[in-house]
Amino acid sequence: MANTSTAPPKEQLMAAIAPEVANIDQAMQRDLQTATADCDPLLVEILEYGLFNGGKRLRPLLAILAARLSGHMVEKIVDLAIAFEYLHGATLFHDDVIDRADMRRGKSSVNKKFGEIAAILGGDFLHSRSMFLIGTLGGNAALKIFCHATNGMVDGEFLQLRNAENYSLSEKDYFLAVRGKTALLIAATCEIGALAGGATPQQQKALADYGLGLGTAFQIIDDLLDYQGDASLTGKAVGNDFQEGKMTLPLILALGKADSEDRQRLLFLLANEEARQGGFAEAYAIIDKYEGFALSRNRAEAIVTDAVSGLDSFAEQGNTETIAILRALAEYVLVRKK
Amino acid sequence: MANTSTAPPKEQLMAAIAPEVANIDQAMQRDLQTATADCDPLLVEILEYGLFNGGKRLRPLLAILAARLSGHMVEKIVDLAIAFEYLHGATLFHDDVIDRADMRRGKSSVNKKFGEIAAILGGDFLHSRSMFLIGTLGGNAALKIFCHATNGMVDGEFLQLRNAENYSLSEKDYFLAVRGKTALLIAATCEIGALAGGATPQQQKALADYGLGLGTAFQIIDDLLDYQGDASLTGKAVGNDFQEGKMTLPLILALGKADSEDRQRLLFLLANEEARQGGFAEAYAIIDKYEGFALSRNRAEAIVTDAVSGLDSFAEQGNTETIAILRALAEYVLVRKK
Repeated sequence: MANTSTAPPKEQLMAAIAPEVANIDQAMQRDLQTATADCDPLLVEILEYGLFNGGKRLRPLLAILAARLSGHMVEKIVDLAIAFEYLHGATLFHDDVIDRADMRRGKSSVNKKFGEIAAILGGDFLHSRSMFLIGTLGGNAALKIFCHATNGMVDGEFLQLRNAENYSLSEKDYFLAVRGKTALLIAATCEIGALAGGATPQQQKALADYGLGLGTAFQIIDDLLDYQGDASLTGKAVGNDFQEGKMTLPLILALGKADSEDRQRLLFLLANEEARQGGFAEAYAIIDKYEGFALSRNRAEAIVTDAVSGLDSFAEQGNTETIAILRALAEYVLVRKK
Repeated sequence: MANTSTAPPKEQLMAAIAPEVANIDQAMQRDLQTATADCDPLLVEILEYGLFNGGKRLRPLLAILAARLSGHMVEKIVDLAIAFEYLHGATLFHDDVIDRADMRRGKSSVNKKFGEIAAILGGDFLHSRSMFLIGTLGGNAALKIFCHATNGMVDGEFLQLRNAENYSLSEKDYFLAVRGKTALLIAATCEIGALAGGATPQQQKALADYGLGLGTAFQIIDDLLDYQGDASLTGKAVGNDFQEGKMTLPLILALGKADSEDRQRLLFLLANEEARQGGFAEAYAIIDKYEGFALSRNRAEAIVTDAVSGLDSFAEQGNTETIAILRALAEYVLVRKK
């Protein structure tokens, strides 16, 4: 890929972001102590369990980096940045209820461990707290961007529900659902970070586009890992999406290229619950035959290349290290195994 | 009761508030049209179904009246006021999922009609929109009060979960759960309305106290209707709380007064799932024998009397009609049949 030669390798990236990640975790602990001071101990336990489980803190990190890139570093940016991790947590809590998922990051999901009620309520609490932080620390402009993203997320979920039974789903509709489900919040994270850092409207746009691309690539890789991942690393069973008949990019691209016979066979395996049970390996082979996986990865790479190209406009301001980290994060999304 | 002689009878109350209620409904329709302009049609349908079903619009109405009482009427108060109806809607959507309730106001609940996923997501959308309106139209002070209430609601739900199996629940713990579950949001509604209307801190406090009292009485009556209501009016089956072993005020007060034998019998009926099935009439009779219902109603009346007494401080400002409506609303809470 072009434009990525300045990115440090993964070890360097991790070393560069480690202090920020520790800082983010501390800010979350501090904030939760205040926010839950008078709360039921069960709520406190659920939040601790659901939020501190080896999450990558990608979203707060992006907000901090975007603020830094945009000129002046705001002292309190970390207190604003954690709002994005809270909202992310809220959506995971609720998603796992919706999907009746038992596992999350290799251990029991919140709904599995504490019950559906606790997961719904815990998610509501985090949702509320995140909007409070955005509103009070980021102001109305930030709240507007944030709400656009949260509404888009709900809308993306509805789209996904609608897409579930649609085996002729188009690439365009897939990307529309990904946008709502994942990319819009990451775009909002970067945009609000930029806003807090005093970015110009053009810079805000560049960082929002970066976030949108990174988020989209993130979801494509997520969907690839669902077919090709190592369950011991991802903490999720392989083939989940296929078993649920979920239309993701590898499948869509393979169906678009397959000859009539393979196409019919793939659709049969997908649409027929009994056939799905033992049909994963066969479906995998057909998708692979038509390069569904490789082409999906290509799409993700092209999107990342495009996304990081917008960072060039910040280069003049002597932001070399921050730009390098943002590039490396985007590339990391492509190679991640979990 | 003292202090209520100026309240108009119910018909007059309804006539006085009818234009406001119509205005609130219009503002909600207008706002939803903007907020859901690009959204999935299913989301639009769910919101329409769940929000426009004969709700009393008590919360937005209180916000508007509190603003009016506090001095100058804000032009856009109705756009802020609808946020409270949205949040109320969001909690009903999620509560019905949590309680697996099939009915709401005499028709299928959102979760029953559209499924749990749609109910969770629809609730999230309303939650998000309500906080957006509060933050952008009410400012940071309003957002702070609002979040205190939403967090209190989650906490109240946890408390209720914890109370569920506790057959020696104290009156104090009952009131603590009611505070979180119902009263805090109504208090916040009045307080934020007052804030928007330019109230002094003392006036804000008086209106918050009014809301807290009204909300508490509202919940006591709700719990009474669960024993004594007419299902054709309430739209809910009678005896639900008892069947679920839920500890509400009539039960708590009766257990406190009952002799050893009746107390043992009541606890047996309550704690034993099989005994509960046919035991409602017997339990009702024991509660009634120890005046559990009458005493609960007395509590609600005393709370309302106390709550409306704070409105006297506004009397000098020539707010006679608004005060009369607020008094009438509080009294209506006591006599409502649904």
